[in-house]
Amino acid sequence: MDPRALWTMSYGMYLVTARAGSRANGQIANAVFQVTAEPPRVAIAINKANFTHDLIRDGGWFAFSVLAETVPMEFIGLFGFKSGRDVDKLAQATVREGLHVPLVVDHAVAVTEARVLQAVDAGTHTVFIGEAGAAEVLSAGAPLTYAGYHARNGKAPKNAPTYRGETEPAAPAPAAASTWTCGVCGYTYDPAEGDPAHGIAPGTRFEDLPDDWVCPVCGAPKDAFLSD
Amino acid sequence: MDPRALWTMSYGMYLVTARAGSRANGQIANAVFQVTAEPPRVAIAINKANFTHDLIRDGGWFAFSVLAETVPMEFIGLFGFKSGRDVDKLAQATVREGLHVPLVVDHAVAVTEARVLQAVDAGTHTVFIGEAGAAEVLSAGAPLTYAGYHARNGKAPKNAPTYRGETEPAAPAPAAASTWTCGVCGYTYDPAEGDPAHGIAPGTRFEDLPDDWVCPVCGAPKDAFLSD
Repeated sequence: MDPRALWTMSYGMYLVTARAGSRANGQIANAVFQVTAEPPRVAIAINKANFTHDLIRDGGWFAFSVLAETVPMEFIGLFGFKSGRDVDKLAQATVREGLHVPLVVDHAVAVTEARVLQAVDAGTHTVFIGEAGAAEVLSAGAPLTYAGYHARNGKAPKNAPTYRGETEPAAPAPAAASTWTCGVCGYTYDPAEGDPAHGIAPGTRFEDLPDDWVCPVCGAPKDAFLSD
Repeated sequence: MDPRALWTMSYGMYLVTARAGSRANGQIANAVFQVTAEPPRVAIAINKANFTHDLIRDGGWFAFSVLAETVPMEFIGLFGFKSGRDVDKLAQATVREGLHVPLVVDHAVAVTEARVLQAVDAGTHTVFIGEAGAAEVLSAGAPLTYAGYHARNGKAPKNAPTYRGETEPAAPAPAAASTWTCGVCGYTYDPAEGDPAHGIAPGTRFEDLPDDWVCPVCGAPKDAFLSD
């Protein structure tokens, strides 16, 4: 059983949103597919540990934005590597009200809203099958693929169905360069830019960052970074 | 509800095989995704009208070969546009015996075999969720994506979850050229080559083909072709 066989499968990259009562959230997912054409139904696999999982289960609806090829890594980092239990992610995005759930329209090629018909227990994840209630094309841009995300040094978080464990592709080996890349989310620290939003002036070397500095995208500690 | 929103979703291209008793078959599918990482489980949507559907249901196992970017359109035509009820497709491929089902290794980057855990009724299609029992990487080639298949003028058959009905992308508009492309499977008839396997000599113009000539890949009639 060679797990690398499964790594050859192709996916898109989606931002899934849901709401239950007054709580709402969004998360990144790649395991989304169309199940039937008529009526149009879609399936999505969501980790039971995720906040969005409970909102889909309790609220009975979900939406997914198809992310554009041009989406910034920081945007994926916000929705893919932080929990809605800790951060109000939707407050940091452009949100439009859908039929039943908030829709995130930043960096989105299209958005589809679906009513849950079935929730299938598949172990660590639930497969939700839903019927599309509304769908709209937002821009003509090319969709980001999972392969394209990996090519940009993106990683799968632990809760992803496609998480590769210790074998997640490593950041480039250390060399005599001055930028450093986060091994969790792929964010690159550039000393020329610093991290002014967190009090780090341009020109600050990575080595000189305070020990409690964390990745501004995913919150990973300093020792999760590798020199580029 | 704009169905084009769903067309922005990204997929790979897979050849799904199954066996029940002495019957075995294979078909093309794009709706396959990984559901959990530990243990590794996968989900697949298969049309109830397809022969392979019944073999998965009755046999309890399926396999999927991840097709390589270099797969010939004729190979996709054989497995995607002909029914195993009419043609012994596996007799025309390189088949290796897996744990429980035949594995097609032609033009495959990797193959995974899965035992069915759940069969979920989703309307026209069944979503089979299976646990990977064996998986192997066969070659280092790039996987074919659904977008890449469409770029090669490939179409979705009527039983596909992603079938676009009358709006399936049309073949190029007629022009003063001598090759003709099948509107069903994308096969191109080149008069310089003819179709010797079916008694059509090289040099035969499309217009001069007999009325009962059919597409050698998918069996579509002559009037399904458009001039390139």
